[in-house]
Amino acid sequence: MDITALTDRIERARTATASAGVDALLVTPGPNLRYLTGYDAIPLERLTCLVLRTDADPVLVSPRLEVPAAAASPAGRLGFDIIGWEETDDPYALVASLLPPTGIVGLDDVMAAAKVLSLRDAMPGVQQSLAGPVLRELRMRKDAHEIEHLAAAGAAIDRVHARVPELLRVGRTEAEVGHDLAEAIVAEGHTTVDFVIVASGPNGASPHHDLSDRVIEVGDPVVVDIGGTMPSGYCSDSTRTYSVGQPPEDFLAYYSVLQKAQHASVQHVRPGVSAESIDAAARAPITDAGYGDHFIHRTGHGIGLESHEEPYIIRGNTEPVDVGMTFSIEPGIYLEGRHGARIEDIVVVTVDGVRSLNQSPHDLVVVE
Amino acid sequence: MDITALTDRIERARTATASAGVDALLVTPGPNLRYLTGYDAIPLERLTCLVLRTDADPVLVSPRLEVPAAAASPAGRLGFDIIGWEETDDPYALVASLLPPTGIVGLDDVMAAAKVLSLRDAMPGVQQSLAGPVLRELRMRKDAHEIEHLAAAGAAIDRVHARVPELLRVGRTEAEVGHDLAEAIVAEGHTTVDFVIVASGPNGASPHHDLSDRVIEVGDPVVVDIGGTMPSGYCSDSTRTYSVGQPPEDFLAYYSVLQKAQHASVQHVRPGVSAESIDAAARAPITDAGYGDHFIHRTGHGIGLESHEEPYIIRGNTEPVDVGMTFSIEPGIYLEGRHGARIEDIVVVTVDGVRSLNQSPHDLVVVE
Repeated sequence: MDITALTDRIERARTATASAGVDALLVTPGPNLRYLTGYDAIPLERLTCLVLRTDADPVLVSPRLEVPAAAASPAGRLGFDIIGWEETDDPYALVASLLPPTGIVGLDDVMAAAKVLSLRDAMPGVQQSLAGPVLRELRMRKDAHEIEHLAAAGAAIDRVHARVPELLRVGRTEAEVGHDLAEAIVAEGHTTVDFVIVASGPNGASPHHDLSDRVIEVGDPVVVDIGGTMPSGYCSDSTRTYSVGQPPEDFLAYYSVLQKAQHASVQHVRPGVSAESIDAAARAPITDAGYGDHFIHRTGHGIGLESHEEPYIIRGNTEPVDVGMTFSIEPGIYLEGRHGARIEDIVVVTVDGVRSLNQSPHDLVVVE
Repeated sequence: MDITALTDRIERARTATASAGVDALLVTPGPNLRYLTGYDAIPLERLTCLVLRTDADPVLVSPRLEVPAAAASPAGRLGFDIIGWEETDDPYALVASLLPPTGIVGLDDVMAAAKVLSLRDAMPGVQQSLAGPVLRELRMRKDAHEIEHLAAAGAAIDRVHARVPELLRVGRTEAEVGHDLAEAIVAEGHTTVDFVIVASGPNGASPHHDLSDRVIEVGDPVVVDIGGTMPSGYCSDSTRTYSVGQPPEDFLAYYSVLQKAQHASVQHVRPGVSAESIDAAARAPITDAGYGDHFIHRTGHGIGLESHEEPYIIRGNTEPVDVGMTFSIEPGIYLEGRHGARIEDIVVVTVDGVRSLNQSPHDLVVVE
């Protein structure tokens, strides 16, 4: 990690905190901590917490036995104090001692309730709000390094999709294929497997069906939606729909509609267009073809250090997208009881339009 | 999942909730939801929440597009309502409408702060507490099925340890070995890789060092601490310390102490002994040999649907352990700047003592 970039992020976060009328952020292990300090702390029941005050230097509170790992991470080169607490200390009282007794603190959005309530009880005069709204403007706009990390994640998941035709076979269960895909996700460079969806035949009509013991049959369309996290911390997420043998006619009828819709939505992306207009661009061709009621989810979600983050590409989100924002474009069509299809790429908003970070072909791959 | 067992868990949870003076539990995706309903819901920014009232039937609130997955899970066979909310609805208002306007609700300990504060704002008359203290007595005591799931997880991680001697080689980096171990964790049957620690030479002195680009050298002791989650949801976690070539004399001196300490601690386990006495049993031989200041963490943690859960085997935890409790016994000795060692097995308390769920040998494995 580039220390200058991290220092800059912390300073921008402190400025944004002050502008939001918030006195301090309390950032626990997860994407915000990694974004601000480069420290990929293990999430533990023990409290690790970056105390980011607007009017004082940052302090990282860490279990004593995690201090060497914290110090060895980029966080150790950012020039702020790391305070270790012993196993029998009260870390919440320690955090409280680093803050004024009143005011507003923004809690990390992913902080677990057990910690939220312990902090509430340790700081009864403090009002709890969220860090997310403060940090969102920073985290949504990826810098060049982040985009390259996401591109590497995209290339890795593309390589996994390239292996799908060897794995999808009549007679195998979704779970068996899913197991092989999980191995491939790691083999192609991810550190963790975040999700593996193999939705065959009627299971394809449920957008978030994951895996089952259903045996794949001849003529099954199969939705394969896979993602993982790279050593950089950045995530991949890509969906393709396959067919094992020749698919039913009614499937082919809407698959070509879906392909056009996904393409139209991607082509619509450029700086300044609203998130909801990107959703509408995906929805229009599907509605026009009579499948509007079968596209039952939003068009996409942001992606970065989290699989799902802002911006959300959904009706009602009138915010314009901006250069450096990265999100999925993943329309789907679902015929309950029959089958379904989804095509998903991650895209980045560029100064002159859009770049896709996934390159797997969109034409239906028929596995024989 | 056995539906009778789940129904029984839900009833016992409702009884425990009432006994604790809590009016309802709000359980979000994660180990508690899986424990109570068998539903392994994907953790999303969208709210999925089991509303478990003491005086009314349970209701599962779910994003509309997750309803088919919820209904297809064991949760769909438990006879309670699943209410889907649309993408533009307010799910927090929906949950509030299912609860009395005042009283105490126990939030899932892993619920993210963003949801905790949204629920707080949607139910200003309700006092938020935690579900964990209510559910702990149930979840700590594993039934026979759970123990067999943990035994299968233990056997899987033992098979990964059996591969370590092929992977640890002079000239390889910790990160390279870690990558291969992650692949092996999946290949041996885990669904996800939870952590991979390869701490070579001086890095071994940091108990939670994970991976680095340090190149393994002749004579390095290497701490390998690995774990993952099985398809059942149950977790593995096992540590062994290896040596690449002959280790230094000062390492050998304390490794044998550590081995005795781990053994003594395991042998001490039987129903009724306190958690802290198990910690003390590990600590005594280490302190007697003069390494007391170098055993810088608690002896263990519970394990089940979470890698770290209750009971914690730590000084100050005077609670007796009971039949069916499962936890790690993992003393370590760490010489800062030099090297370290840790030996970790998962054990289960049985009616007449203890059973270890890991079978890898404890003698130092010297990789040539």
